[in-house]
Amino acid sequence: MYSYDHLYTFTKQVFQSIGCPEEDADLATEVLLSADLRGIDSHGIARLIGYVRLWETNRINATPDVKVVHETPSTAVVDGDSGLGLVVAPHAMEIAIQKAQVAGTGWVSVKNSNHFGIAGYHAMKALAKDMIGIAMTNASPLVAPTNSLERLLGTNPIAVAIPANEQPAFVADFATTTAANGKLEILQRKNQEAPLGWIQDAQGQNSTNPNELKAGGALMPLGGETGSHKGYCLGSIVDIFSAVLSGANYGPWVPPFVSFLPLPTNPVGAGIGHFFGAMRIDAFRPADEFKTHMDNWITTFRQSKAKSEETPVLIPGDPERIMAAKRFQEGIPLLDPVVKDLESLANKFSLSF
Amino acid sequence: MYSYDHLYTFTKQVFQSIGCPEEDADLATEVLLSADLRGIDSHGIARLIGYVRLWETNRINATPDVKVVHETPSTAVVDGDSGLGLVVAPHAMEIAIQKAQVAGTGWVSVKNSNHFGIAGYHAMKALAKDMIGIAMTNASPLVAPTNSLERLLGTNPIAVAIPANEQPAFVADFATTTAANGKLEILQRKNQEAPLGWIQDAQGQNSTNPNELKAGGALMPLGGETGSHKGYCLGSIVDIFSAVLSGANYGPWVPPFVSFLPLPTNPVGAGIGHFFGAMRIDAFRPADEFKTHMDNWITTFRQSKAKSEETPVLIPGDPERIMAAKRFQEGIPLLDPVVKDLESLANKFSLSF
Repeated sequence: MYSYDHLYTFTKQVFQSIGCPEEDADLATEVLLSADLRGIDSHGIARLIGYVRLWETNRINATPDVKVVHETPSTAVVDGDSGLGLVVAPHAMEIAIQKAQVAGTGWVSVKNSNHFGIAGYHAMKALAKDMIGIAMTNASPLVAPTNSLERLLGTNPIAVAIPANEQPAFVADFATTTAANGKLEILQRKNQEAPLGWIQDAQGQNSTNPNELKAGGALMPLGGETGSHKGYCLGSIVDIFSAVLSGANYGPWVPPFVSFLPLPTNPVGAGIGHFFGAMRIDAFRPADEFKTHMDNWITTFRQSKAKSEETPVLIPGDPERIMAAKRFQEGIPLLDPVVKDLESLANKFSLSF
Repeated sequence: MYSYDHLYTFTKQVFQSIGCPEEDADLATEVLLSADLRGIDSHGIARLIGYVRLWETNRINATPDVKVVHETPSTAVVDGDSGLGLVVAPHAMEIAIQKAQVAGTGWVSVKNSNHFGIAGYHAMKALAKDMIGIAMTNASPLVAPTNSLERLLGTNPIAVAIPANEQPAFVADFATTTAANGKLEILQRKNQEAPLGWIQDAQGQNSTNPNELKAGGALMPLGGETGSHKGYCLGSIVDIFSAVLSGANYGPWVPPFVSFLPLPTNPVGAGIGHFFGAMRIDAFRPADEFKTHMDNWITTFRQSKAKSEETPVLIPGDPERIMAAKRFQEGIPLLDPVVKDLESLANKFSLSF
């Protein structure tokens, strides 16, 4: 177990070591570790070495000039200048919130960025302002559209955070595939089989082998056998809002997170893309009224009759919020390979882990 | 086979017979029959008698005063005054488009409405203005959240329409359940079994019986066995955007479409709710540039290698567009029970069918 403070100090030092200004290092650290706190281990400190490797191959700019390149009262396009997505995304979300303060809603599409951690973090930034927050991003292609053998979409997550009054906020944050790639990585590490409906092999057949992607297979869109066209729709919408609207790379041209894979040739845009939204509650109805009804919505659903006592009905965000409180208190567990990666980073930058 | 013109004339006469002004009757007819044209038979003229029955039980106001009750530069809440959703929804979408013309985007949440036909029709209204269109609606509760035995959500569809240049538009329109209720109705009529993952019985067990809903069962959210929490998130977001933002009924309080079921007691709002969005493409980047990239996106996906030649990779909206062209040309097939319903309407209002 590692305390949040310990991991925070170390991660911040690593980001400063690659040249991030202190303010950006703090921001990137908070965003990255929010994944570890919330139990989404695949998107947290386990990826720190990945960001460093991208910086080493000049795919990340540690001192980006993040700027608005086009705007209207309720929209903006942000150029991330190849910065860390962990830094670019909070700036873009802040612009969405500022637009919403004036115009009722704000919508920001981002190009020239990199992976931004967990979508939920960014959506949740709207909550304290009594706004609904929305965040999505495209990602490197691992997912085959319905009927296709080719990997053309990323796991393209969507997060929506909605404030309540006395109840904790509603926070949905999910990949538009049956399973996030992180869950597959865990099965690979543990050498376990995947459930049917997650993966297809290189011939397009159902597979339970979590290593199938290395052999030409693909993740399947949310919906499985009879409904994957709906997950395909969702993943496509995320791709288009994030990248075709902003001028980032889309579909098969989205650059990989891992530095050892080459960049796609003939890029159709700049970097990867994100999309953020903020909707002021009182642009629709008084915030107190809305939040009181959200309390009613949440308690109605949470108290509904469960199939079994062991699996109560949850509200989106419940498991992650409970995990975050626990891990902030008790510490964050790290797998041995992750600890080894962090030790190698400590060694590289003469830090102590 | 019935020609579009024949069904149009008859449907318009029925709407006029219940007291709709001619302009509204035209609008409601166009919206309703767009479902039949696009092959979504469950949402088209088969429901005409249902709308009439709602009017007969005073649940529909044929001469509503549809008005904006709250607004900001990019948002509005519309009170549908118990009007036909088929009439209220196009007015609300038009307001979203007008807001987008000024503020870059427009977002309209609607209360006090009724069923609005297919979501795709409303989203597609944005296309001719070089905007992305979004439409969603809540509906009477048929769906159990993950782990729950209770029906708390409707099939709550989402539609997103995105313009292209030479290619036909991208039009996604899907229920947030594994299967739309209409598909279940077809299985009931044909006395066929449903695939696993669509339905749970009153004890929460998987069922293939399409009549299970009448015995206390429920539809399952999109995602099936391992992913239904994602469909539950999506259906919930639709419910909250459509009804908690506007002041309509949400969750188990959404009124039923069928007039023989009583209205829920202690309503938490007015009627059912919808949510519409319009985003001007050139609020983000020049429309021509965007639409050329959409052409590239669409052709890349459509031309990707298919699992089999018989099932090519489709773009969302392809099947419905092809069906609409065919049915507009060759006519619309109607099932015998639907024809009987239409004949009874003809009789009731002294019309000829």
